[in-house]
Amino acid sequence: MSKHFYEDFAVGDTSETGRYRVSMDEALAFARAYDPQAFHLDAAAAEASFFKKLVISGWQTAAITMRLLVDLRKAEGGELIGMGVDELRWTAPVAPGDELHVTSEVVDIKPWPGGKPRGIVRFRNETINQDDLVVMTHIANAIVPKRTTS
Amino acid sequence: MSKHFYEDFAVGDTSETGRYRVSMDEALAFARAYDPQAFHLDAAAAEASFFKKLVISGWQTAAITMRLLVDLRKAEGGELIGMGVDELRWTAPVAPGDELHVTSEVVDIKPWPGGKPRGIVRFRNETINQDDLVVMTHIANAIVPKRTTS
Repeated sequence: MSKHFYEDFAVGDTSETGRYRVSMDEALAFARAYDPQAFHLDAAAAEASFFKKLVISGWQTAAITMRLLVDLRKAEGGELIGMGVDELRWTAPVAPGDELHVTSEVVDIKPWPGGKPRGIVRFRNETINQDDLVVMTHIANAIVPKRTTS
Repeated sequence: MSKHFYEDFAVGDTSETGRYRVSMDEALAFARAYDPQAFHLDAAAAEASFFKKLVISGWQTAAITMRLLVDLRKAEGGELIGMGVDELRWTAPVAPGDELHVTSEVVDIKPWPGGKPRGIVRFRNETINQDDLVVMTHIANAIVPKRTTS
């Protein structure tokens, strides 16, 4: 089903992405670039940390979540332009080797202020691991074009 | 000044990170991995997009923000463990070549429920480009250990 335009969405719509397995190499590369803390880079140091094991950066979990959602939206014929995010929570750690997917539900739809030819669709997204444990939740506010531009 | 423990923070504390210039190569690598949409990957296609030019993924802006904050906290003797994020907003596009820095203000401090030896420090962070334009804002909720564990 095409999900390109504002008019294509309804509150309560749900969808599910494909799967993404994060490798140790990818975890270390992301941590070196964007989150160089011992519990993301060094297995021995990580055992003595808050997490008790090497875990990936929460921002990498967010980036993987975006990748999964972009692939889903592209398959539906749309794009994904973020305005912002509310209530993002990292609810469980993610380790290299874990496989993630995302479920997405439309929770609100509203026109853009001022009659612009676009609107805001709010999604509640859950990022879930291979054991069905929710590792991240957030509300995404997306900018979606209207079909009619009059 | 050491900023390792919960007791080291006070509401109203402000700090500023170093600077980070994002290159075209880094922008394309991130987009290919995590946000493969035309307005992040193809300059010609980007001109016809919502953004009118090639821009970096908002999640890369978030990742760069984390890198700048981690470097700041490491210099202060601490680490940065995120519990979650509220009210993240991408307020202006970021293009390859832009140079970002972050200002951070402590807006709330509260003990962890149940008397655990840690607390939650809330920071209001602004990510700012080389023209002093705010490109991203968010509230970060960080888990910070207490000095006394009794």
